[in-house]
Amino acid sequence: MAQNSRFAPAIAGEPNAEWARKADALMPTLHSIEQQPVALVNMIPDPAQILRFRVEKAATIADFATRSFRKGDSFILDFEGHRTGYLSFDLETVGREPDAPVRLKLTFGEVQTDVAEPLHPYKGKISEAWLPEEIITVDYLPQSVKMARRYAFRYVRVDVIDTSPGFAVKFLNVRAHAVTSAGPMPAPMGATPRLRRMDEVAMATLRDCMQTSFEDGPRRDQRLWVGDLRLQALANYASFQNNDLVKRCLYLFAAYRDKDGLVAACVYEKPHPRYGGMHIVDYAALFNVTLRDYVLATGDVATGRDLWPVARCQLELIARWINADGLFVDPGNMWIFIDWADKLDKGAAIQGLLTFAWRATAELARRLGMKQEDASLSHRAGTMTTAGRAAYWDAHSGRVVSGPRRQVSWAGASWMMLGGLLSPREGRKALFATLDDPAAIKPSTPYLYHYVVEALIACGEKKRAMALLESYWGAMIDAGVDTFWEVFDPTTPLSSPYGDIHINSYCHAWSCTPSYFLRQKLS
Amino acid sequence: MAQNSRFAPAIAGEPNAEWARKADALMPTLHSIEQQPVALVNMIPDPAQILRFRVEKAATIADFATRSFRKGDSFILDFEGHRTGYLSFDLETVGREPDAPVRLKLTFGEVQTDVAEPLHPYKGKISEAWLPEEIITVDYLPQSVKMARRYAFRYVRVDVIDTSPGFAVKFLNVRAHAVTSAGPMPAPMGATPRLRRMDEVAMATLRDCMQTSFEDGPRRDQRLWVGDLRLQALANYASFQNNDLVKRCLYLFAAYRDKDGLVAACVYEKPHPRYGGMHIVDYAALFNVTLRDYVLATGDVATGRDLWPVARCQLELIARWINADGLFVDPGNMWIFIDWADKLDKGAAIQGLLTFAWRATAELARRLGMKQEDASLSHRAGTMTTAGRAAYWDAHSGRVVSGPRRQVSWAGASWMMLGGLLSPREGRKALFATLDDPAAIKPSTPYLYHYVVEALIACGEKKRAMALLESYWGAMIDAGVDTFWEVFDPTTPLSSPYGDIHINSYCHAWSCTPSYFLRQKLS
Repeated sequence: MAQNSRFAPAIAGEPNAEWARKADALMPTLHSIEQQPVALVNMIPDPAQILRFRVEKAATIADFATRSFRKGDSFILDFEGHRTGYLSFDLETVGREPDAPVRLKLTFGEVQTDVAEPLHPYKGKISEAWLPEEIITVDYLPQSVKMARRYAFRYVRVDVIDTSPGFAVKFLNVRAHAVTSAGPMPAPMGATPRLRRMDEVAMATLRDCMQTSFEDGPRRDQRLWVGDLRLQALANYASFQNNDLVKRCLYLFAAYRDKDGLVAACVYEKPHPRYGGMHIVDYAALFNVTLRDYVLATGDVATGRDLWPVARCQLELIARWINADGLFVDPGNMWIFIDWADKLDKGAAIQGLLTFAWRATAELARRLGMKQEDASLSHRAGTMTTAGRAAYWDAHSGRVVSGPRRQVSWAGASWMMLGGLLSPREGRKALFATLDDPAAIKPSTPYLYHYVVEALIACGEKKRAMALLESYWGAMIDAGVDTFWEVFDPTTPLSSPYGDIHINSYCHAWSCTPSYFLRQKLS
Repeated sequence: MAQNSRFAPAIAGEPNAEWARKADALMPTLHSIEQQPVALVNMIPDPAQILRFRVEKAATIADFATRSFRKGDSFILDFEGHRTGYLSFDLETVGREPDAPVRLKLTFGEVQTDVAEPLHPYKGKISEAWLPEEIITVDYLPQSVKMARRYAFRYVRVDVIDTSPGFAVKFLNVRAHAVTSAGPMPAPMGATPRLRRMDEVAMATLRDCMQTSFEDGPRRDQRLWVGDLRLQALANYASFQNNDLVKRCLYLFAAYRDKDGLVAACVYEKPHPRYGGMHIVDYAALFNVTLRDYVLATGDVATGRDLWPVARCQLELIARWINADGLFVDPGNMWIFIDWADKLDKGAAIQGLLTFAWRATAELARRLGMKQEDASLSHRAGTMTTAGRAAYWDAHSGRVVSGPRRQVSWAGASWMMLGGLLSPREGRKALFATLDDPAAIKPSTPYLYHYVVEALIACGEKKRAMALLESYWGAMIDAGVDTFWEVFDPTTPLSSPYGDIHINSYCHAWSCTPSYFLRQKLS
């Protein structure tokens, strides 16, 4: 996720000290696992590969440990798989007594292009400071080096900027120290090897994003967003079941809201927890859905009760933009996300999403034994349904249409179905027509693909849901990914919403839900 | 000093554990002094300046603290004067919540050219890893940054590689933390303001090289060399009087010698003390001179006695290359330093220097009450004198000549005088003729200039010695230096023995002896 500067920063409210303390008390211990590289590799240009490079083994680690390197030399180590973590190694010198420091450039690659291509000149729109590279100078040799910053990587490329004419360096005991709060990974599930691999990759994606919160991506932004959290929590209930981490995140969002009480789009954990400076209408609503999911998954009614006022407050605040008929009217000064897809008319989708949130909040009230709240919210969801259908449901064509140009989109059909604005039969019709329509606006993110699959399941179309899982996430599996990507378009895998693929995140939380589907909904 | 790869590395001997312990027990406490920058400055091209840049004040620090910086911005802070130390600052953000790390490039300038000119492409022959620059990435903002590595600097240039489009950064509480084991600086001495400034600059040079040992230069190589140590110790006795630091260095050299017992040209302190892998004939001999100086300056006869075997051993080992007549015969496989001057024939100079060392060792024996040793060494110095005069003294022209082409050099005349191979009258004649001869090989380092001044004083020519001090070190004073340089040729100030002035060291121990002369020998 990246900031949207179209909208002015929001003003933080006074943090809720009690909830902040509860979030803090739930700070997880990170497990650190030491890992060795498996090979020295070369990246070979290969147009047949999705990222245009093939990984070729160049030497064993035993052979690598005998090699020494000088100014201008470089090498790439492959640790296999993906991890979030740290790097350490021992630098020894060969030749004369070292009469200078050693200066190294290290580049951390989630995928081949990160280490096979120069990262500069950087052409991206978002901060170049995210590029996963580091120049270090080691003064006193021999020396054990433990790099201070955390990285997300499979490959480590080292370029020796200089030793001195008098000596070369050897790299011994190179180790990754993978960190996660996820715990051990369950055995993959799925009817075929390809699906089991999909589950494994999805769990790896989730694991590497599970740190002291559910991060969106360990490379970038390393931050807790509501939209990602909901999907991570779903996958977590089906796999690692570190439910206290979900609880911690719910308390973080509850503690650090805007001055009116609206939940932030994201919160910051470091250097100290705080409000993230912006909100997204759909993310505020999805906080309620996430809380509902949590209470249902864990039975932790006490937390549901504790945070109920926050959920209630979200609906009250969002209700300001819903007219008397029950239709959401975009105030124009609020970020509505849904997906990064260009040109998406978000009217139908946000109406569906908000109705979905109203219904989920009603269900939460029901689970907490608040009958009157349930009735009132369910009633309101009913008027929103009526208004939404009137505005966006074209019964004649069996399509969800949005905006003056009656735009058809995967987002609109999916969210109208999920919100209960369509019957399963209507939803099936709308979704099938839309998914088969080349002119329909497609999702640009795995995040929205998730909701399309969820909508297909909601209208009883498990087979079609599985087919979409197989075609979309399956294409990444076929491409040999270790974790699922932030953005992936099988037709243009080298595209970036930021203008430079080297800044893309290749392990991104909102793409981890195949595990939720494979282990729970489609198993 | 830089390694000389013409000669094979030497083999370390077994360290002397007792002396190693003594050196360790003398580890000094470093004083840390917090310092604020005095101004934001611009470097203005100016051909009238020795380094072609003039420092122009751009803003006060109060004004600087109100400014914020983004991608592509840069600024230079002036801390005035020179220090060895660390840098810290607080990074605060302006604008939206920071949605990315901040990446900065910091360049530490001893002189204007370090921060006014790009350091790349680097053209030097020695390690580029010495270039005083660093790229750091600060992940969590706001953040207090304390840079881990030590630098030698007056100026700090910061280039903002990136923040993000959403926010800018402010630099607050920028502080230098100067470190030295020198203690407070005495009031400068000298008959004129220019000489007092010269003393002050010399003491600042010494102070910034006084760390856990006497380093040659705090930028580069940060290492203890015998040749530098002798000059630093002399200046120290006349100023800071941190005599235990000299003692520590003597024990380091004594503890870590080569397999035959020859003193190293340099020792390493970190990561653990050890033999430096090479020796220099003249430096091994100068160990004895340094020990003699120490005992005379401090009266610490016990240390003199303790280390006497090392001194004795140096002469025995060097004596292998002195023939029966008393003439040193270059074995061809040993580094003889004297000076970096190209084309210098070193015969006369090394003969003079070794005789000087023999006499100093005899004087040490005398001070330690070893009459027989004194007599024997003095006798040998006598034969070396006779042989050296026969080989290098041209009584007819009143010149010292060296090599088949009868080369005349400042080095030869000075060391023949210092070694007592010339009478004061002869020395005066030889030195005056040589110094006035444009064809004579001049020194290329302040190190050798020191011995020329010392030689002039030795033949009673204090006035000429002072004139040389004024013309050579005075030219640096007139150029506005804060510390004396590693290499300085008034006619070509932009020259570097390493092929790139950005790798030169501008605070270099072996140029600190004006304080010795002004405070003791010429006062």
